[in-house]
Amino acid sequence: VTPLAWQGGPADGRLWMLDQRALPLAERWIPLDTADEVATAITDMVVRGAPAIGWAAAWGAFLEARRLGDQASAAALAPALARLRAARPTAVNLMWAIDRLQALAARSAPSELADRFFEEARAIGAMDRAANRAMGDAGAAEVEGDGLHVLTICNTGSLATSGWGTAAGVIRSLHAQGRLACAWACETRPWLQGARLTAWELQRDGVPVRLLTDGMVGHLMKTRRIAAVFVGADRIARNGDSANKIGTYQLAVLAHHHGVPFHVVAPTTTVDLATPHGDAIPIEERSPDEVTAVQGVQIAPEGTPAWHPAFDVTPAALIRSIVTEQGAARPAYEASLAAAVQAGVATHSAR
Amino acid sequence: VTPLAWQGGPADGRLWMLDQRALPLAERWIPLDTADEVATAITDMVVRGAPAIGWAAAWGAFLEARRLGDQASAAALAPALARLRAARPTAVNLMWAIDRLQALAARSAPSELADRFFEEARAIGAMDRAANRAMGDAGAAEVEGDGLHVLTICNTGSLATSGWGTAAGVIRSLHAQGRLACAWACETRPWLQGARLTAWELQRDGVPVRLLTDGMVGHLMKTRRIAAVFVGADRIARNGDSANKIGTYQLAVLAHHHGVPFHVVAPTTTVDLATPHGDAIPIEERSPDEVTAVQGVQIAPEGTPAWHPAFDVTPAALIRSIVTEQGAARPAYEASLAAAVQAGVATHSAR
Repeated sequence: VTPLAWQGGPADGRLWMLDQRALPLAERWIPLDTADEVATAITDMVVRGAPAIGWAAAWGAFLEARRLGDQASAAALAPALARLRAARPTAVNLMWAIDRLQALAARSAPSELADRFFEEARAIGAMDRAANRAMGDAGAAEVEGDGLHVLTICNTGSLATSGWGTAAGVIRSLHAQGRLACAWACETRPWLQGARLTAWELQRDGVPVRLLTDGMVGHLMKTRRIAAVFVGADRIARNGDSANKIGTYQLAVLAHHHGVPFHVVAPTTTVDLATPHGDAIPIEERSPDEVTAVQGVQIAPEGTPAWHPAFDVTPAALIRSIVTEQGAARPAYEASLAAAVQAGVATHSAR
Repeated sequence: VTPLAWQGGPADGRLWMLDQRALPLAERWIPLDTADEVATAITDMVVRGAPAIGWAAAWGAFLEARRLGDQASAAALAPALARLRAARPTAVNLMWAIDRLQALAARSAPSELADRFFEEARAIGAMDRAANRAMGDAGAAEVEGDGLHVLTICNTGSLATSGWGTAAGVIRSLHAQGRLACAWACETRPWLQGARLTAWELQRDGVPVRLLTDGMVGHLMKTRRIAAVFVGADRIARNGDSANKIGTYQLAVLAHHHGVPFHVVAPTTTVDLATPHGDAIPIEERSPDEVTAVQGVQIAPEGTPAWHPAFDVTPAALIRSIVTEQGAARPAYEASLAAAVQAGVATHSAR
């Protein structure tokens, strides 16, 4: 499974996106022809997941470069890149991808810019796939033994990345190593990424998964032995505070209370050294309609006020390790994350 | 609002039940003519809420007594009472109501038994309404100041009782006293009692309510000042351990972590002195289909394994007070609950 696919060559090809809003009931692919369409698809959550939206934005930037042709330049591209960058506020991978493309535009001649953007969009996907595999193995090494029950939230798998997954990649690696008894997946209201996406893609791969509602986590940890919690991240501050899907913070508190290790799994491109701590991470508020209805079915009385923060921030103090493609970073995170990011930048530049 | 209503006299009247599965989209009343139909309605959650199902069972017992007529006796009633008692396993109010009716049957002549059951079913409703008002005021006294934000889960209001409500009764009392800014209502998956029922009935009464998903509680407590959590209970063990709707336990852990007082609100009829501690409370497991579908809409792939414990147990150590109609019981609960129950029994017998 992949959240998006380029079909054809640079000159006449087309970007196709799997509509994650319709899963698992329908597998619908949507063609996208402009940067604006890509930005809207990101805002509307046709595609979601921090690494995947960075990758999608790179394709959107290429579509704009192709449209501009010989007129392509950093200046000409600026409005489209700004629009893509603002499509969602919390996940920093989006900003990271746009930063790379902006830098690339600044050092490219107009005639070759579209081709270089095309290569860059492909490269971002390839880098992410390689990082996913490394994270999966590094995360699996954080937990000992076999017959393991682990818990996760949201979707951090192939649909959220360009391959194996981040936290779900750890689950895939544990399964590949024969050490996984069950991946417990929080359904993850309001958007139900756990029920709709994680259950769907893990079952396709034969990974044992069991669904629970977000309110059952405390009871699960109290009554069964959970080896670890693995979650993804949308932005990791310099001090290790990590923003992720709403519901993640309370998993960390519950894990702490029950003595269950809590790990964040994300590529170094999710680490934002420019953000000092979690309070500085912007938290997207989405429409209350996504709370008062489920898949189009009204569940609360018409006009019920509802709250819909899309993310929350887990303080570094509750995080046992932050697993990147460079291995497991441990507290104190200021130093370990800075080192991981430096190694990541070196790898990405060396390519 | 009331979860059920008797229409007519003892000889020819009929029991009507508001179908809580259809709320808030439809307000459908169902007539019930036999004890067996009442037991099925309890199992299927046409009616739910610990006090309400005790009350409903009393009406079911009366329907059987009426059917038996002059043949009514403790022995003749036994199968129907056993069926009603077993309709759901966790809420002890159901067993309490059946115990009362059994004792009443044992001391009644067949010719007067149906009439006495009729009076008893009415009396159980009246006792519950009086207890609700007392709990509402006693619970409101547990929190100081005004402009209060409080949090609750599930539905513990008029639909779950025969009147004002338990935890929702505290919210109504705070509102009546002009001290409530907002009642935050967890939507309470899988059955969505918070979204479908609590939001509905509080809004009908003009009580300010705001809905959040069960995964947003940690973020709410971290970012806003929550004055207290008030929850209901389905069974309270002798030591104060309290079973309530799944999701309650983790609210207590989160409240503890954030320094928010956590209160249980339930009549003394919910206290089961014969159950020494929470581990001895039977936890109902319901169908996984209630997790993988929402209001009939499939949200997970066909055949996804899911977990559905309907209740969890909050240890006494996390509970600031247990508010009954006899006032707020405080730790150590063995002594304070025993005293409250004794006072409750005296009140109920004196009637």
